[in-house]
Amino acid sequence: MKQFSYVDHQMMLRAIELAKRGFYTTDPNPNVGCVIMKDRKIVGEGFHYQAGSYHAEIHALNVAGHQAIGATVYVTLEPCSYYGKTPACVKALIKAKVIKVVCAMQDPNPKVSGRGILILKKSGIEVEVGLLQSDAEALNVGFIKRMKTGMPFIRLKMAASIDGKTALFNGRSQWITSVHARRDVQGFRARSSAILSTSKTVINDNASLNVRWSELPESIRAHLPQSKVRQPLRVILDYSEKLHDNLNLFKTFGGPLFIVNSLPGNINIPININKQFDLVRMLMFLAKEHSINELWVEAGQTLANSLIKLDLIDELVLYLAPKIMGNDSLGLFGELSIKKISDILELRFSDIRQIGEDIRIIATIKSKKNSNSVDF
Amino acid sequence: MKQFSYVDHQMMLRAIELAKRGFYTTDPNPNVGCVIMKDRKIVGEGFHYQAGSYHAEIHALNVAGHQAIGATVYVTLEPCSYYGKTPACVKALIKAKVIKVVCAMQDPNPKVSGRGILILKKSGIEVEVGLLQSDAEALNVGFIKRMKTGMPFIRLKMAASIDGKTALFNGRSQWITSVHARRDVQGFRARSSAILSTSKTVINDNASLNVRWSELPESIRAHLPQSKVRQPLRVILDYSEKLHDNLNLFKTFGGPLFIVNSLPGNINIPININKQFDLVRMLMFLAKEHSINELWVEAGQTLANSLIKLDLIDELVLYLAPKIMGNDSLGLFGELSIKKISDILELRFSDIRQIGEDIRIIATIKSKKNSNSVDF
Repeated sequence: MKQFSYVDHQMMLRAIELAKRGFYTTDPNPNVGCVIMKDRKIVGEGFHYQAGSYHAEIHALNVAGHQAIGATVYVTLEPCSYYGKTPACVKALIKAKVIKVVCAMQDPNPKVSGRGILILKKSGIEVEVGLLQSDAEALNVGFIKRMKTGMPFIRLKMAASIDGKTALFNGRSQWITSVHARRDVQGFRARSSAILSTSKTVINDNASLNVRWSELPESIRAHLPQSKVRQPLRVILDYSEKLHDNLNLFKTFGGPLFIVNSLPGNINIPININKQFDLVRMLMFLAKEHSINELWVEAGQTLANSLIKLDLIDELVLYLAPKIMGNDSLGLFGELSIKKISDILELRFSDIRQIGEDIRIIATIKSKKNSNSVDF
Repeated sequence: MKQFSYVDHQMMLRAIELAKRGFYTTDPNPNVGCVIMKDRKIVGEGFHYQAGSYHAEIHALNVAGHQAIGATVYVTLEPCSYYGKTPACVKALIKAKVIKVVCAMQDPNPKVSGRGILILKKSGIEVEVGLLQSDAEALNVGFIKRMKTGMPFIRLKMAASIDGKTALFNGRSQWITSVHARRDVQGFRARSSAILSTSKTVINDNASLNVRWSELPESIRAHLPQSKVRQPLRVILDYSEKLHDNLNLFKTFGGPLFIVNSLPGNINIPININKQFDLVRMLMFLAKEHSINELWVEAGQTLANSLIKLDLIDELVLYLAPKIMGNDSLGLFGELSIKKISDILELRFSDIRQIGEDIRIIATIKSKKNSNSVDF
C-alpha cells in the first residue's frame, strides 16, 4: 500500500474539513472538499456547497488560477468525468495542468467508479487513491450507501429512560428528554434527505417533522444561514389513513409530504401479503426516485421493531434521559423473541456523549445477515 | 466567605491527591491528605494509609521536622482532637508550633465536629475552613454519610443491554457485559466496606463476591500491592435459607460472611410484618456495628426494586452493553407503578464513560423524600 507523507495527510485533512461546510446544503450531492498545493503552500481550496453550484475542484482551481500549473490536488472524492449540471472536473484539472491528484476515495457509483482516475492518468497526471479514506467515507455515508446498494442510509432515533422505557403503562410520555436533546434531533433532521415516521407518532405527538432553524444547535446555526435550511422530505406511513387535516404536519412549514397509504394511485408502493408495507421496496423507491441519501426515522416501537427484524438499521441514535420508569412502563424495541444468548442483537458504540441532561449513544448494528451489509 | 489564594488551592489540591492514595486501604477510617508549607515551599506531606497507622498530619509533621515551626498546614479534614488508636493530631500541630491550619472541611461526626478547630484556635493558631470542600467530601462519601446519618453510602450496581434488559425471557443472562466492565466492578468492590447481595444472585451466578487482585484494573493494581487488598464484608440476604455448602461463596477466599436469614440467634435483625427484611434497620446495624461506610450492592431486580422504593440508593452504577434484547426480555428495576410523568424517578448523571465495549453510567437519584437525603 502507498505510504503518504505528513504533508499529504495535512492537506487531505484540510480538504475533509472543507467538505464538512457543505453538510447541511449539498444533498442529494456528496460533500466534497479540495485543496491545491504548490511548493508546499496552499494556492487554492474549495468545497461543494449546493447541488447545481460548482464542484469543490472548480472552486479550488478558480482560486489557484495559473498557480495550478504543476500543482498537486487533494480531493476527498474521485473527480467526476461526466458533464452533469456542471462541467466535468477531470477536464478542468487536465486543462489547468496540475501534475498530481490525490483522492481519498473512488467514486462509489459502480457505473463511473475509477473512470475519472483513468482519464487523469491517461493524460499524464499522477494519481493516488486511499489517503484518509475512512474519514472521507464518513462525510457521505448516505450518498455512498445509495450509490452502492440502491438503499438510503437509515438512522433510527429513539429516546428512553435509562431503563429503556419510552412511556408509562398508561401511554403518557411526552418530553422524556430535555430541550438540548430535542435541539440535537433538529440537527439530525437538518442533515437528512428525508424523515420517516408513522401516522401514529405524528398524531400522538402532533409532530411537524420539519427543521426549525431557531431550534438548531448553535454550532450548526453559526454556519448555516436560515435561508439555506433544507426541509427534508417527510415520509409518513399511514396504512389505516388516520392522518387528518388538523395536524401540525399539514399546518406547519416543512418538506414535501410523501404519505404512504393504501389508496390506489396515490403512491405506487405495493403492500405485501401480510397487509404490511413492503418497507424494503419503499426504501429502494425513495433512494431511486427521490435520491434519498440519509433517512432519519422518528417513530415508535412498531416501526423500530420492523426495521430491526428486517436488519435495515445502519445507525441507532438513542437518547437516554436521567430517569427510571420501571418494568411496567413501555419498552423501546418491541418483542424480539430471542431465545439464545448468541442471538442477541449486537451493536458497536461509535459515539457516547452527554447532551444537556441526557446521554446520546450512537451505535451501529452488527449485521447478522450479509444481504444488507455494506462494506465501508 | 473567605477568599483563598491560588497557592492555597494548589496546596489543598495536592493534599486531596495524597488522600486518594489511601483509597483502597483506609476503611473504615476516612481518606485524609496533608501538606505543610513554609516560605511557599512544601516542607512535609503525608496521607492516612490504614486504620491504626499514623494520621496524615503526623506523617507530614514527621517529614517537616523543625521546619514546621511557623508553617501553614493544609489538611483535607479537620484534625482530630481525641486520642484514638493514635495520639490526637491537634496536640501534635500545637506542639510543632505551626501558625496556620487550612481545613477543607469539618469533621462530619456531629459529636466532635469543630472541636479540633476550636482547640487550635484557642492555642493561637489561625484556622480557615472550606477550601475545596466538595472535592474533599468526595474522598469520603461513605464515612461522611455514616457519621451524619448512621447509614452507609449505598451504590447499586446493575448491568443491562441498551434497552434496559438483564436477561432473556427464559432467564439466560450471564456475561452481558464485557471483561472490562467486570474488572471495573472489581475496582468498586475493592473500595467498598461491604458487598450486599441475595442468595438468588449468589446461586444463579455462583458468585464469590470477593476482590481478586489479578482482575482489578491496572490503574488500581499499580498502587495497591496484592497483600494490601481488603476483602469487604459479604452480606447475603437469604431469608428462605437457600444457600448451600457447594457454592463458590463458601469455597473461595473472600471477606467475612454475614448471612441474613430467619434463623434465631444467627443475626439479630428483626423481620418486619410483611415477611420482608427490614432493610433500613439492617443497614443501620451494618453502619453501627461493622462501621460500613460504602456498601456495594450486586443483586437482581427484586432487591433493586426494594432499594428504589425505600429511596435508599445514593448512587447507581449502570453498565450498558452494546446489545438489544427486546421487550420480551427481563427488565432492570421491577415494577414501579408510576402513573404520572411527574412521579417518574429522576437522576443526575455524574459520570458517563466507555469501559471496554460497554458504557458505564454513574448517577445519583434526586430524592423525592427528605428523610434519607444527605446534605453534602
